Amino acid sequence: MTVEVGTELPEQLFRVTRADLVRYAGASGDFNPIHWNERVALQVGLPGVIAHGMFTMALAGRAVTAWTGDPAALVEYQVRFGRPVVVPDDDEGAELTVRGKVAALLDDGRARVDLTVTSGGEKVLSLARAVVRLP
Amino acid sequence: MTVEVGTELPEQLFRVTRADLVRYAGASGDFNPIHWNERVALQVGLPGVIAHGMFTMALAGRAVTAWTGDPAALVEYQVRFGRPVVVPDDDEGAELTVRGKVAALLDDGRARVDLTVTSGGEKVLSLARAVVRLP
Repeated sequence: MTVEVGTELPEQLFRVTRADLVRYAGASGDFNPIHWNERVALQVGLPGVIAHGMFTMALAGRAVTAWTGDPAALVEYQVRFGRPVVVPDDDEGAELTVRGKVAALLDDGRARVDLTVTSGGEKVLSLARAVVRLP
Repeated sequence: MTVEVGTELPEQLFRVTRADLVRYAGASGDFNPIHWNERVALQVGLPGVIAHGMFTMALAGRAVTAWTGDPAALVEYQVRFGRPVVVPDDDEGAELTVRGKVAALLDDGRARVDLTVTSGGEKVLSLARAVVRLP
């Protein structure tokens, strides 16, 4: 592929349900009840059950690896957790939209990709960026 | 120990919380939402979130292995799931009481133990019995 500064990644949509969070709790070992218990989440001042930040980060990362075609091409990845992804108690869950754009071409055939990750129209990750090795 | 027909096992109490069920879901791979989602549990006609039957069975089995002192001494084990263990959404959860009594001495130094497993005063397992190898 031809990649230059400004090249956009295909937009990716993900759905996150509470069932996903229960699975992620088991897979990650993070059983904090704010990720599966509405009562506890409200008690601690959250608007509801929220997704694990690392899960959101992982989904956003998938938009990058889907673009590179090779998960191993993702050589650096960082995010800041800006706003929680609130996951309603229904089959739809929360929608996560991941957009990405090549922000810089680096040496050694690498590129920096800046990501914009939103849920319900709000940015949930800030400063989300990846460095990928281009094919 | 001296074991005869009628010998009683020490009574064991267990608490089962929703946090335990979320963990058990991940450990067992049984993610059925009736074990972690009140809304779904009520929708399908249950009185609330219920424990995985195999988890209840496992806890009752622990009362037997605690008595024998050796998990490998439990050579046969069967239960019938009579009534669901309803697990409230609080830190206490459900209480499970396990009582056992030696019902028969078998050949080869084995004994049959009949279990009575209750939650909230109601029998939750019916026909719960184990065969153990006596030390």
